[in-house]
Amino acid sequence: MDFSVPEPFQATLNEIRAFLDERVIPVEASFRGADDFAPVEAAMREVRAEARARGLWLPQMAKRHGGMGLSLLEHGLVSEILGRSPIGNYALNCQAPDAGNMEVLAEYASRAQRERFLDPLLAGEIRSCFAMTEPGRAGSNPVWLETKATRDGDEFVIDGHKWFTSGADGAAFAIVMAVTEPEGAPHKRASMFVVPTDTPGYSLVRNISVMGDPGSGWASHAEVRFEGCRVPASSMLGLPGAGFLIAQARLGPGRIHHCMRWIGICERAFDMMCERAATRELSPGKMLGEKQTIQNWIAESRAEIDSARLAVLHAAWRIDAVGQREARVEVSAIKFHVAKVLRNVLERAIQTHGALGITDDTVLSFFYRHERGAQIYDGPDEVHKSVVARELLKRHGLDVRRRPAPGAAK
Amino acid sequence: MDFSVPEPFQATLNEIRAFLDERVIPVEASFRGADDFAPVEAAMREVRAEARARGLWLPQMAKRHGGMGLSLLEHGLVSEILGRSPIGNYALNCQAPDAGNMEVLAEYASRAQRERFLDPLLAGEIRSCFAMTEPGRAGSNPVWLETKATRDGDEFVIDGHKWFTSGADGAAFAIVMAVTEPEGAPHKRASMFVVPTDTPGYSLVRNISVMGDPGSGWASHAEVRFEGCRVPASSMLGLPGAGFLIAQARLGPGRIHHCMRWIGICERAFDMMCERAATRELSPGKMLGEKQTIQNWIAESRAEIDSARLAVLHAAWRIDAVGQREARVEVSAIKFHVAKVLRNVLERAIQTHGALGITDDTVLSFFYRHERGAQIYDGPDEVHKSVVARELLKRHGLDVRRRPAPGAAK
Amino acid sequence: MDFSVPEPFQATLNEIRAFLDERVIPVEASFRGADDFAPVEAAMREVRAEARARGLWLPQMAKRHGGMGLSLLEHGLVSEILGRSPIGNYALNCQAPDAGNMEVLAEYASRAQRERFLDPLLAGEIRSCFAMTEPGRAGSNPVWLETKATRDGDEFVIDGHKWFTSGADGAAFAIVMAVTEPEGAPHKRASMFVVPTDTPGYSLVRNISVMGDPGSGWASHAEVRFEGCRVPASSMLGLPGAGFLIAQARLGPGRIHHCMRWIGICERAFDMMCERAATRELSPGKMLGEKQTIQNWIAESRAEIDSARLAVLHAAWRIDAVGQREARVEVSAIKFHVAKVLRNVLERAIQTHGALGITDDTVLSFFYRHERGAQIYDGPDEVHKSVVARELLKRHGLDVRRRPAPGAAK
Amino acid sequence: MDFSVPEPFQATLNEIRAFLDERVIPVEASFRGADDFAPVEAAMREVRAEARARGLWLPQMAKRHGGMGLSLLEHGLVSEILGRSPIGNYALNCQAPDAGNMEVLAEYASRAQRERFLDPLLAGEIRSCFAMTEPGRAGSNPVWLETKATRDGDEFVIDGHKWFTSGADGAAFAIVMAVTEPEGAPHKRASMFVVPTDTPGYSLVRNISVMGDPGSGWASHAEVRFEGCRVPASSMLGLPGAGFLIAQARLGPGRIHHCMRWIGICERAFDMMCERAATRELSPGKMLGEKQTIQNWIAESRAEIDSARLAVLHAAWRIDAVGQREARVEVSAIKFHVAKVLRNVLERAIQTHGALGITDDTVLSFFYRHERGAQIYDGPDEVHKSVVARELLKRHGLDVRRRPAPGAAK
Repeated sequence: MDFSVPEPFQATLNEIRAFLDERVIPVEASFRGADDFAPVEAAMREVRAEARARGLWLPQMAKRHGGMGLSLLEHGLVSEILGRSPIGNYALNCQAPDAGNMEVLAEYASRAQRERFLDPLLAGEIRSCFAMTEPGRAGSNPVWLETKATRDGDEFVIDGHKWFTSGADGAAFAIVMAVTEPEGAPHKRASMFVVPTDTPGYSLVRNISVMGDPGSGWASHAEVRFEGCRVPASSMLGLPGAGFLIAQARLGPGRIHHCMRWIGICERAFDMMCERAATRELSPGKMLGEKQTIQNWIAESRAEIDSARLAVLHAAWRIDAVGQREARVEVSAIKFHVAKVLRNVLERAIQTHGALGITDDTVLSFFYRHERGAQIYDGPDEVHKSVVARELLKRHGLDVRRRPAPGAAK
Repeated sequence: MDFSVPEPFQATLNEIRAFLDERVIPVEASFRGADDFAPVEAAMREVRAEARARGLWLPQMAKRHGGMGLSLLEHGLVSEILGRSPIGNYALNCQAPDAGNMEVLAEYASRAQRERFLDPLLAGEIRSCFAMTEPGRAGSNPVWLETKATRDGDEFVIDGHKWFTSGADGAAFAIVMAVTEPEGAPHKRASMFVVPTDTPGYSLVRNISVMGDPGSGWASHAEVRFEGCRVPASSMLGLPGAGFLIAQARLGPGRIHHCMRWIGICERAFDMMCERAATRELSPGKMLGEKQTIQNWIAESRAEIDSARLAVLHAAWRIDAVGQREARVEVSAIKFHVAKVLRNVLERAIQTHGALGITDDTVLSFFYRHERGAQIYDGPDEVHKSVVARELLKRHGLDVRRRPAPGAAK
Repeated sequence: MDFSVPEPFQATLNEIRAFLDERVIPVEASFRGADDFAPVEAAMREVRAEARARGLWLPQMAKRHGGMGLSLLEHGLVSEILGRSPIGNYALNCQAPDAGNMEVLAEYASRAQRERFLDPLLAGEIRSCFAMTEPGRAGSNPVWLETKATRDGDEFVIDGHKWFTSGADGAAFAIVMAVTEPEGAPHKRASMFVVPTDTPGYSLVRNISVMGDPGSGWASHAEVRFEGCRVPASSMLGLPGAGFLIAQARLGPGRIHHCMRWIGICERAFDMMCERAATRELSPGKMLGEKQTIQNWIAESRAEIDSARLAVLHAAWRIDAVGQREARVEVSAIKFHVAKVLRNVLERAIQTHGALGITDDTVLSFFYRHERGAQIYDGPDEVHKSVVARELLKRHGLDVRRRPAPGAAK
Repeated sequence: MDFSVPEPFQATLNEIRAFLDERVIPVEASFRGADDFAPVEAAMREVRAEARARGLWLPQMAKRHGGMGLSLLEHGLVSEILGRSPIGNYALNCQAPDAGNMEVLAEYASRAQRERFLDPLLAGEIRSCFAMTEPGRAGSNPVWLETKATRDGDEFVIDGHKWFTSGADGAAFAIVMAVTEPEGAPHKRASMFVVPTDTPGYSLVRNISVMGDPGSGWASHAEVRFEGCRVPASSMLGLPGAGFLIAQARLGPGRIHHCMRWIGICERAFDMMCERAATRELSPGKMLGEKQTIQNWIAESRAEIDSARLAVLHAAWRIDAVGQREARVEVSAIKFHVAKVLRNVLERAIQTHGALGITDDTVLSFFYRHERGAQIYDGPDEVHKSVVARELLKRHGLDVRRRPAPGAAK
């Protein structure tokens, strides 16, 4: 066992950290306060161009796609740094949901689809969205969809109602999951489609206000309707009935990315908590950090973050070594475990800041509000716990009734 | 011991509940989504007029002030009902910070002050604010203020910087706490002043954006400056140096009101959680409420809410019976205990709602965001815990170094 | 609502408290350390005689049975005091399992049974046990029993295997639950029998060592076998098939007793924690109670105990007012809620005592070890939570599959 | 980063695991139930001889001392396996307190001391104890000792009162910490002495009953007195005033050993929990493991154990790489973090076992009772949290008043 990070890669991490601090965080405050994403997008255009020029671009992609060609473990270490800022991933073009969509397209798209959709996405020229979650159906049960795509000659006609289609506002296309084989086995009913957002029958109903933010542009979660939305049969990604499989393939590494991003949020909040404790005066000469309760929070947070980070890196290492399927206990375990650590740390950081902590003057409120969803999206905690237990009980001879794997809201 | 509510008063409670459901909650959604309080204020004018006409007005005040003349315990039961909606207290003119200001004015104001400030406040014609908390000084240490009021002939000149001056936007006057006796004992340095908001030298710097809400009108928390702000010496409330005493007198019953309001929030969230569990389908015919985890949350919430409510009512009964000073252990204990129950219940209710729970489509997100402060305002949890422990350790012969009692951010 | 205890009854409570402190607690240390209950029994004989002489006897029984004739709420207040010592209930002859057996006999026994079994039990001349729980069957499912009583002429032949038959060692008789109507509805299969322990076919296999204590006499939990154990048909208590009903009737008020006893344990541990905090020196002149973490524990414990006590008293008041069936949500809620508070308080009290806390030099270790079962006996927490949730979800229209009510290990 | 264990060492681990299962665990039940350690010692003599013959001996010692010559990380992996049984470490002669004493003697003893005390200890022929903790002084403040060693010619005269001197019953010698330089700086007042237990003036007062176990032989925690106990000046270990330094050096790696042993306990309890869940029938055909609450416990335990293990191994790796001093944040962090995980897992495993869980029929009760001390010995959680916070706050410029490092009860 060796916990060290090799020198050359450590240098890359240091460079990303410096880039984040110097180029990204200065833009962050305008992002947090914005009702409109457009000016942020404009400000970030230059930042992204510089990132790309420096080779800090697409850490999730192979070199042949213009990416950094990292292992999942290495990418995890990058995600942690980027996670420190809500726009960190956006700066390097590895933000959800585009990053996952790129992976799907790289794996399943035809050459024509890659040229039309993947290339400009890799270049950061367009954005995309992923339409899976439905308001009328439990996200925890992704094999039970209402949205249908009906074959009609050379076309499919899509009808359905989606929400939490993140980044739909301004997206050039959506990857859509819809039932094409209603008589198939539950896991083989749905297929994936690429649907340009200017296709007739596609409409963005609204950006859903989430935790006080109305949402705009990339930073939005839309409600979307498909009403007689016709796409050519060639819009299908992969094989008929492969929708669930593709969704799972997309979500697996995505969970590592999320978890490491959350670790990054934890570290940012932790630094702020320590800084506040070390500088806030309670009475003349008496600092907040002298209070034992604050010390407890600092110590507990440090222990929780460090052990959680190792668990995520270990899960990434397992996926790199044995593949996603063999590592599914580890992946589900970190999903709910790190989400809880994130909650703990944010709670403590806010409380340490007192009244300031609940204002929007710091980034803490943003994380507190927008990462409440961490326990819900990509499968709620409760579903991941059942996945872990089911797998482990099998090893003791108990086969708990098969349940579909957890779905995703993002 | 008798836990029953006498029939005539129960009828009043039922009437308030019906009024809340029929007249107040329909306005609530427009309030939650509003960046501007003005249209809500307009809509509520009629609701409040009706409340007043029906005698459901000023539950916190004695009959001689036009109030309902309730005991603190009875008022607690009213607060619980009103707490179900973010504008419930506003409907009956017992909203913070006006309710506390009315109590202060009724107790300490001169006749002239009462006529000018209290009467229109009781009538709901004006609003007010309370300027105590300062950005540069810990709210947990209310005897350490920077704001000064310097005597100059027949006037005082106030200089200082306040924030979390809730409802300052649109308020007719502020009650301001400022140091007048800098050489006095720590608890006797500050005095209270009534300052009309059109006094030169008073300025509202900004409404502080809190948990994603920029704030407007009554629903705001302002940053306020006093720069050479001159008020007649007769603006002082009570005696010189009585500021801390008045603040404490104001906060004591206020904590009962807050705690019972939180119980009301808990009940609203609890009802929503049960309703969701009973109606949300996970798969055909399988309801969310059949999941044992959800059942655990329902049961734990029920137990926590019920025991917390009894603790608050008991504390109110103790204040009614022996006064606020003798009941300070109970009051501090419920402050942090109920705030925690509130957090637990809101977390569970949101998680039960899944993705819907983090949207602003329900009231849960509003409560989640705006009651995060419950653990901070009117003295953070940590300070109240020390107050309780200090008092109890005294009974075992240990006199822990005197610490000032907790302050207030609201 | 009135939280006061009427003066005459408060005087009784004070007398019991003094009796406990002066007469019972001095015997306690010898009880805790004893591998053999006999000398403790001898020492307590005098104490019990005095209690009886002073009218502090059988607080759970009506006056016609020689008891104190208390309401359930009043009895709860007595239980709290007695709970401060592990032999408090024993001193007043209201210890489990005898207290519950007395209630059952008073309600269901024939005159002959009452004379033979109830009267000497009331007099404290004999002890008894209650054989319900089985090692092979989940205690959480009391309608699924293996023990059978087969009719054979004028007799029943009992065959089965029980455990956690508390106090069987030295008991004069057992009340035994056995299936007599195997074809009946699940809740109507079992009947209750009174079985003298000298009946052939009855055998005490062993006292089960529990949490480090091998067990002896009243302070034991036995494994018991019935092998062709013949009793006259008149040994049945109540009607055939009424076993489950009688068990439930026995357990309902028993939960109030347990919960108030736990509150008493909490208060004892709380006093010890405060005393330790106030007197333990960490370094010259620096007391343990000055540490904020200890203060947090004191404050949190105070808040949790006080609110839990009120919840139990409220549940008792509800049973007094509307009966056990209508109060079943409250009763199940306090069962798991108070058990958790008990755990919290004991943990904190032990940690406050440091190394001393884990020794058997104080009573804390005894409570810690022997009340771990509080979350298990009389229905594990998990079952009570489901009971609460099921009842509450019904009010929202969801009828979760019927599950048998929780059973009992004591 | 590489999380794999190299093949040859994995083979060693497998061999130890098999040895534990086949040779050690069969002895375990007699150990748990024993009031007398002598027969267990006899039974283990053969087991230990075999371990030694197979080279599975002294995993904590260098090869030159006859040990396995492992890195701390490797030793941690061994500790995890041994921790599965309460006598696992004893089997390989790496049990506390002897293991730590061997390390101290190997580092600080003179040649004569090594021959007399270390060699037979390494051979497993004698046992030893470590007398540091005092009943009258807080274990959390190890620089404040009452025990004195006064120079008198060529001798020291030791006077003092110790407790939690584990394994004193039957030990051949004690390593004793006593003040020799009362005027020195707080950390330089005490020295270490080797004191044969047959020295006049040394007396074993009693084995302290701990959590229901009276204690015997190695499995005991004694109260010990030194009354005019004379030892030659050559009995001192290391330099005068080096006592605290030696104690710290002894405790550092000891914490890794403890933490990994706790992980081993967690794994044993986890396996038992899964096995119970997979085989316990709640009603015909309905298994305990189908309950979602049990599944939650399994999943949460898995996540907590896995992340905690990685944190301990990482801390061991850090000590191997940069030394104990540089790794003190990590070491203190795992101390309280893993102790908490241990508590969580044991609680869940017991609750999963229902009534069986609180009996002494399984090993769970033993762990539950005897590892309650994990949060207390070698420095209570609260002290380690302060150590972590103090170090981290320094990096933000706040120097919290220096406090002595945590002491040890074992």
